[in-house]
Amino acid sequence: MTKPFVAILMGSDSDFPVMQLTTQVLAEFEIAFEMRVLSAHRTPSQTMAYVKEAQERGCEVFICAAGLAAHLAGTVAAHTIKPVIGVPLEGGSLQGMDSLLSTVQMPAGIPVGTVAIGKAGAQNAAFFSAQILALKDATLAARLQKQRVENAKKIAAKDEALQEKLKMAHV
Amino acid sequence: MTKPFVAILMGSDSDFPVMQLTTQVLAEFEIAFEMRVLSAHRTPSQTMAYVKEAQERGCEVFICAAGLAAHLAGTVAAHTIKPVIGVPLEGGSLQGMDSLLSTVQMPAGIPVGTVAIGKAGAQNAAFFSAQILALKDATLAARLQKQRVENAKKIAAKDEALQEKLKMAHV
Amino acid sequence: MTKPFVAILMGSDSDFPVMQLTTQVLAEFEIAFEMRVLSAHRTPSQTMAYVKEAQERGCEVFICAAGLAAHLAGTVAAHTIKPVIGVPLEGGSLQGMDSLLSTVQMPAGIPVGTVAIGKAGAQNAAFFSAQILALKDATLAARLQKQRVENAKKIAAKDEALQEKLKMAHV
Amino acid sequence: MTKPFVAILMGSDSDFPVMQLTTQVLAEFEIAFEMRVLSAHRTPSQTMAYVKEAQERGCEVFICAAGLAAHLAGTVAAHTIKPVIGVPLEGGSLQGMDSLLSTVQMPAGIPVGTVAIGKAGAQNAAFFSAQILALKDATLAARLQKQRVENAKKIAAKDEALQEKLKMAHV
Amino acid sequence: MTKPFVAILMGSDSDFPVMQLTTQVLAEFEIAFEMRVLSAHRTPSQTMAYVKEAQERGCEVFICAAGLAAHLAGTVAAHTIKPVIGVPLEGGSLQGMDSLLSTVQMPAGIPVGTVAIGKAGAQNAAFFSAQILALKDATLAARLQKQRVENAKKIAAKDEALQEKLKMAHV
Amino acid sequence: MTKPFVAILMGSDSDFPVMQLTTQVLAEFEIAFEMRVLSAHRTPSQTMAYVKEAQERGCEVFICAAGLAAHLAGTVAAHTIKPVIGVPLEGGSLQGMDSLLSTVQMPAGIPVGTVAIGKAGAQNAAFFSAQILALKDATLAARLQKQRVENAKKIAAKDEALQEKLKMAHV
Amino acid sequence: MTKPFVAILMGSDSDFPVMQLTTQVLAEFEIAFEMRVLSAHRTPSQTMAYVKEAQERGCEVFICAAGLAAHLAGTVAAHTIKPVIGVPLEGGSLQGMDSLLSTVQMPAGIPVGTVAIGKAGAQNAAFFSAQILALKDATLAARLQKQRVENAKKIAAKDEALQEKLKMAHV
Amino acid sequence: MTKPFVAILMGSDSDFPVMQLTTQVLAEFEIAFEMRVLSAHRTPSQTMAYVKEAQERGCEVFICAAGLAAHLAGTVAAHTIKPVIGVPLEGGSLQGMDSLLSTVQMPAGIPVGTVAIGKAGAQNAAFFSAQILALKDATLAARLQKQRVENAKKIAAKDEALQEKLKMAHV
Repeated sequence: MTKPFVAILMGSDSDFPVMQLTTQVLAEFEIAFEMRVLSAHRTPSQTMAYVKEAQERGCEVFICAAGLAAHLAGTVAAHTIKPVIGVPLEGGSLQGMDSLLSTVQMPAGIPVGTVAIGKAGAQNAAFFSAQILALKDATLAARLQKQRVENAKKIAAKDEALQEKLKMAHV
Repeated sequence: MTKPFVAILMGSDSDFPVMQLTTQVLAEFEIAFEMRVLSAHRTPSQTMAYVKEAQERGCEVFICAAGLAAHLAGTVAAHTIKPVIGVPLEGGSLQGMDSLLSTVQMPAGIPVGTVAIGKAGAQNAAFFSAQILALKDATLAARLQKQRVENAKKIAAKDEALQEKLKMAHV
Repeated sequence: MTKPFVAILMGSDSDFPVMQLTTQVLAEFEIAFEMRVLSAHRTPSQTMAYVKEAQERGCEVFICAAGLAAHLAGTVAAHTIKPVIGVPLEGGSLQGMDSLLSTVQMPAGIPVGTVAIGKAGAQNAAFFSAQILALKDATLAARLQKQRVENAKKIAAKDEALQEKLKMAHV
Repeated sequence: MTKPFVAILMGSDSDFPVMQLTTQVLAEFEIAFEMRVLSAHRTPSQTMAYVKEAQERGCEVFICAAGLAAHLAGTVAAHTIKPVIGVPLEGGSLQGMDSLLSTVQMPAGIPVGTVAIGKAGAQNAAFFSAQILALKDATLAARLQKQRVENAKKIAAKDEALQEKLKMAHV
Repeated sequence: MTKPFVAILMGSDSDFPVMQLTTQVLAEFEIAFEMRVLSAHRTPSQTMAYVKEAQERGCEVFICAAGLAAHLAGTVAAHTIKPVIGVPLEGGSLQGMDSLLSTVQMPAGIPVGTVAIGKAGAQNAAFFSAQILALKDATLAARLQKQRVENAKKIAAKDEALQEKLKMAHV
Repeated sequence: MTKPFVAILMGSDSDFPVMQLTTQVLAEFEIAFEMRVLSAHRTPSQTMAYVKEAQERGCEVFICAAGLAAHLAGTVAAHTIKPVIGVPLEGGSLQGMDSLLSTVQMPAGIPVGTVAIGKAGAQNAAFFSAQILALKDATLAARLQKQRVENAKKIAAKDEALQEKLKMAHV
Repeated sequence: MTKPFVAILMGSDSDFPVMQLTTQVLAEFEIAFEMRVLSAHRTPSQTMAYVKEAQERGCEVFICAAGLAAHLAGTVAAHTIKPVIGVPLEGGSLQGMDSLLSTVQMPAGIPVGTVAIGKAGAQNAAFFSAQILALKDATLAARLQKQRVENAKKIAAKDEALQEKLKMAHV
Repeated sequence: MTKPFVAILMGSDSDFPVMQLTTQVLAEFEIAFEMRVLSAHRTPSQTMAYVKEAQERGCEVFICAAGLAAHLAGTVAAHTIKPVIGVPLEGGSLQGMDSLLSTVQMPAGIPVGTVAIGKAGAQNAAFFSAQILALKDATLAARLQKQRVENAKKIAAKDEALQEKLKMAHV
């Protein structure tokens, strides 16, 4: 029987420092994942082969990260009916506006669920995967709910720290 | 027991002509859905109340469509751990660039899976929902697979028609 | 009886170095203020609760600062009829264009008075608050008038310094 | 004694169809207003003279609407400490991106509270004025509160109409 | 033996009215061509199969036209070492800025020679193909040279017509 | 009798490092100039007074440099019929796109001849001034012509240096 | 002896409807002008030849209008030391943003005084030319001054008409 | 007999560090090349003279790199029917968006095959040249094919390295 996991594809190993954030969030939620360097343009056959066999082995969500004319998510989406999440990266001089538009503006029929450019998006790709998988995994749903509460507490703690600072310094 | 469905929220009833495309694709896949006019800014309490009770009644995916400073998807995402899909609409003078950035650039922890601006996005929100729900619905997965094949056939038919036209006219 | 004050909300404590400029200008004008870390997306209930009780305690103007898909000002505006001033911040890769559009492009009925991206905006949020409060506070109006004169003098002084420099160096 | 009013300035009489929306909202709230065609560039002296005497006659808020390199709001703000609200208009080929940036990116010390480009902004300039004036006018505050409730009802009505339509048509 | 030709691929038959301009210029230069409706996303296998067999039959240049997240040229370029010319089209709300960036911002190693958005680009894709093929076809080179001269004459004729008009009307 | 000179206005003394380039080019051409820190928004009266008296003392061209919502050039242009050259500066987060649009998009009747953002523009404001003044100063015209030749020589020298480098290194 | 005139160059005769506005303003000021269809790309030699001989015949200012990758003004500026005014036109899908940047972002040494995109710019190119020529033509300077006064009167008249309309309709 | 080569033109010697990447790729493919500092604006005659004589000596492809209002590629394209490849560079504050639009948005009849902004584009200009020249050079075609395979291997190696890293660290 196949074991459900998330596949993270990135166009270049230089994307690792950003995409590591995705793996950290997935690990936090105890979601199994694989991570591959695969390029829509430079290794198209390997990319397609991987998409095919990953599905067979139980991949349920694909996360695809790329910069510039970011075709990776779209290319993967063209070869699977599993949900594909696109993370536009900031490589190049246009600060990710190119990768955002290349990822999100998909034609009807081949959707890519796109998240924010760069680090926030890398984390949210993991959160969004978790939300999708939680639809059939009550434990994961509970973890997500708990993380929300903890996150709110962290912000409350930061707010308290700020109140202390303001009190001390009278700004 | 709750019955799974997709909830479509739109900020204004003037968004209906575009968002009707979402309902058509969902209907094609025989996915149950509800559609509501609810505004993040003008009816915030109703929006939150709906999100809460829709979940209880079995809503598994939220599709949120808005123009301008499109906060609807983000606001809904802040109140649920179900996947939220954002459809940026073209209202206003900036042709949807404002709604795209307002929808996709979410901070870490509260993801919105964003699709293309306007009509293509409206359809893809439905396709993406179907892909998510198909993870636990083999019948739906089969329908998605079949739709892909039929879609490819349609394009092939258009290509054939083009070949006929080219042959006739020698362009 | 309630005591009038300005409430400064920011989505993250990392916004403090910029938003401290707001507090400095408010302090200069001897305007009472509170400053809170509150997120439209991560602590929506706390944000709404704060808006409600701040009003009851005498908050007359809300200043809301956020980056990326900056929904904070709009969310606050949806829950109060007090004037809300939005400060778009530069977080992320698009240099504040995303937060500017997310803040300023509000739909009819729920206005956010938006100021410049980043530091200039952080200061102007305070100046604009002062101008609003000065409508019923003649002392504050006099202070604003005086600050204008002093500001003009500072520029005149800089101009004089430049004339000296030009004279010395023949450029 | 001076009577409080809002002054609406627009750079050209061709802006009237949009700015009429501002007058309609103000009239709805029974706020007195004046409306003038005055240009920062073509009638600078008249503009300054008007700002000066309008204040003396009781103007409490200036609303300034202009397209292209929209300097009107900034120019007025340079000559008054009353709150100035800027409405960027869509004149010219850049759809208001030029007027938005020319209006909102004001340097520290001379704020312009900027609203959305075009029609939504024209209405929100009036709503924002009302919010400012309501700080010392309980009747106006009550009217604003009531309008919010009515606006929410209108959206609820539209939502109901949509439910009817969906029921009839099964979409 | 293979016969050299240019292959024109377009993502949708709705692109025909623009891409017909490409065929007209190619026909003018008596360059053989094929034109196909093939989609990077909806018919990826057919696209790859066509690229492979077109090369075997003598295709020397690929012209790929697409709108939105225009991946067609990049996808084709990933599967051939023949020159690929990308024509960004205006489909969707962002007027071709999305297709321009999706087409031109290719990563190192997989070039797409990109031309202007829309009609000018559609024509220039043909001119550029002709220039490439003319490197080994002296007759074609002569035709290109002649076309330049004729084009200059046309502009001179338009200039003369303008001089007449100016003389008549004294403007 | 008045003595012809160029007046350089800048909104802030922090603009000096860039605008010094303007003075260097003017000095190179032996064109008299004055340089002032004057703000359209913070010292509007002084700015207008200076424009008036500078003209009386022989100012023939105004160069106005500002960042953000750059109104300085337009404000000056509204008060003189002398040519006004606008230099958009990079202050703020939008890298000068705001100051470019605020400077160049002037309404009909009040022109500002705008040059490039930042350093290139600062130099070109001086060159453009020189070209304007050279229309009635044959010596200056000769200097401009000579500078062009020298500039071309500099580029030729750089090209020669490159040829040396390429020869040495075989790249 | 040469007779001073302004040369208007446009890249295509389709630019005439916009550039006719330039001729109308010049005619109003009784400034002699020539108007030519000349292309930087399609008739480069003729363009250069014209620039050279126009100067010899007394051309004092060049106005160059073009759309898309608008090189005309820069090309002319490279061949003359007379002031060159660039008018970016709206041809193509990017609404003149391409022609604006292609015209204004000139490198140091070869300035183009750029005006607004489209109609406002076409008129301002004429006004700016008049301002330049007025430096040595007192009659023209007087005309410019008079036009300013008349323009202000026109706005005042429009303002009066508005006051009538407001009075009649109570809006 | 002429010897085929590629000519690399750049507007400034400061572009060398980026354009050296072009020479490295060409050298890798054993393609002869020349590299020149030539400016469309500062040395227009030398540029045209070079284009003419380079062709006579066997230049088959021109690669033109420039920043800001990048006219170099268009100017060269106006004087040759050889394929011209444009590399937009990042000089100036707009990060290459100006040079991209100035290079790619060429009018019909004078194509410039444009590649990505900056380093990726500099490399791809060489790859694209190689693809063009390979149409009549089977050895070069074989080298291109081999490079693709090697490039894919490099990515596979990086992927393997990532798998090792992931295994070691459990991330």
